[in-house]
Amino acid sequence: KVIWTVLVTVLGYASSLPVGEDALCTAEELAKYRIIFIGKWSQTAFPKQYPLYRPPAQWSSLLGVTHSSDYSMWKKNEYASNGVRDFAEKGEAWALMKEIEEAGEKIQSVHGIFSAPAISSGTGQTSTELEVHPRHPLVSFVVRIVPSPDWFVGIDSLNLCEGDHWMDEVSVDLFPYDAGTDSGFTFSSPNFATIPQDTVTEITCSSPSHPANSFYYPKLKILPPIAQVTMVRLKKSQLGLSAPFINLPAKSNEIIDTVS
Amino acid sequence: KVIWTVLVTVLGYASSLPVGEDALCTAEELAKYRIIFIGKWSQTAFPKQYPLYRPPAQWSSLLGVTHSSDYSMWKKNEYASNGVRDFAEKGEAWALMKEIEEAGEKIQSVHGIFSAPAISSGTGQTSTELEVHPRHPLVSFVVRIVPSPDWFVGIDSLNLCEGDHWMDEVSVDLFPYDAGTDSGFTFSSPNFATIPQDTVTEITCSSPSHPANSFYYPKLKILPPIAQVTMVRLKKSQLGLSAPFINLPAKSNEIIDTVS
Repeated sequence: KVIWTVLVTVLGYASSLPVGEDALCTAEELAKYRIIFIGKWSQTAFPKQYPLYRPPAQWSSLLGVTHSSDYSMWKKNEYASNGVRDFAEKGEAWALMKEIEEAGEKIQSVHGIFSAPAISSGTGQTSTELEVHPRHPLVSFVVRIVPSPDWFVGIDSLNLCEGDHWMDEVSVDLFPYDAGTDSGFTFSSPNFATIPQDTVTEITCSSPSHPANSFYYPKLKILPPIAQVTMVRLKKSQLGLSAPFINLPAKSNEIIDTVS
Repeated sequence: KVIWTVLVTVLGYASSLPVGEDALCTAEELAKYRIIFIGKWSQTAFPKQYPLYRPPAQWSSLLGVTHSSDYSMWKKNEYASNGVRDFAEKGEAWALMKEIEEAGEKIQSVHGIFSAPAISSGTGQTSTELEVHPRHPLVSFVVRIVPSPDWFVGIDSLNLCEGDHWMDEVSVDLFPYDAGTDSGFTFSSPNFATIPQDTVTEITCSSPSHPANSFYYPKLKILPPIAQVTMVRLKKSQLGLSAPFINLPAKSNEIIDTVS
């Protein structure tokens, strides 16, 4: 049903986005998308310290926002807001929702908030719909990695507008980030505030460069994606509940199986 | 800002709803609501076996649907669907979302799905927006009680339409339900399937009538509400993000404090 597809799979996507005045969106009208988040955090792909009990590996609710370049939910190498800290550390969404609401009221930089239900295992999927507007064509979201000190995956300011039209489909691999607010090194580290707060950093197989780190795999060049997100534009005839979910497997089993 | 308010606080609300052909809705157009869920599961109000660790008392994501009387998400004294079972036992939303989607496709009985982020403690709040339609004026949702065997709170087929107009505000106290799929007796009971499956039942201070039950308070007549939900209609000028959150405290502290 999707005629023309743009499939983007970019590493470190967040740091390379052309946002701002340059990326003027002249598309007409609003556009609606189904967003599907797929967790790929399997014990096969991430065997080290994989959390099996109390709690087992899982994903928090997804909390997202559609916005203009005047708003930023989170950004690599910048400090996390209090709302992002609460969400990344505890999965507590209220403060972040209030921040987004205030940005919407004060500087009209936000179009809408969306959320999708949590996933109760490391692999699995969740989904919701979102709406973008020519003046608010950017999508950001966060999903907390559970359990973890303050780790999350997400998208920062992905532009769904391409000049005068909306993208039909975008798919992005996701990698873990550290919110910089808790100094825990492993999935189940006790709560230990980072003072002063550090910036948001990507966690890689070699950074933090310490064998105790849960994502430290010295034999790998890069981590396999721990999650993936796909946004598919809904045609007018598909709006509302008539919009079918994409036919994905009940559980995502196509896990990349290259971690030794 | 809300001029005319209907405040409904009904015990056992779900079983007393006038739905079906009788309750024909002749309101014009769609209506949007902000829905606010407030957890009131405090140690003060529910001291018995209150879960403090791994995990502490908290609420899952809220998953809801707006629909016609041809669809039912869950109903007291009837059997829970597989989707409701997965959600009530594990907080896994996917199967329930698929069920809702199928009802939307096959019999056009569903208008939309909505979800709100989880709450990481027993008291606290979460919120999202929902849309109802004259042919789909009913609201149902579920929120899992975490930890618990298969316990949840929710609303079954609340009608937001009153003849030719939409209600401005509705507030309902919520009490715990047992999905009938897991025989655990306490918040932290190990997983133990109920075979054959039982129906959805309300949990009260005297039923199940056994001292080991986490909600068994023989000195009480009724349990205090464990949660509350409020739906406030958004006026046209408030639609989208300009719709303010209701001014609620950052944490709900007005917990009823009568349980000995």
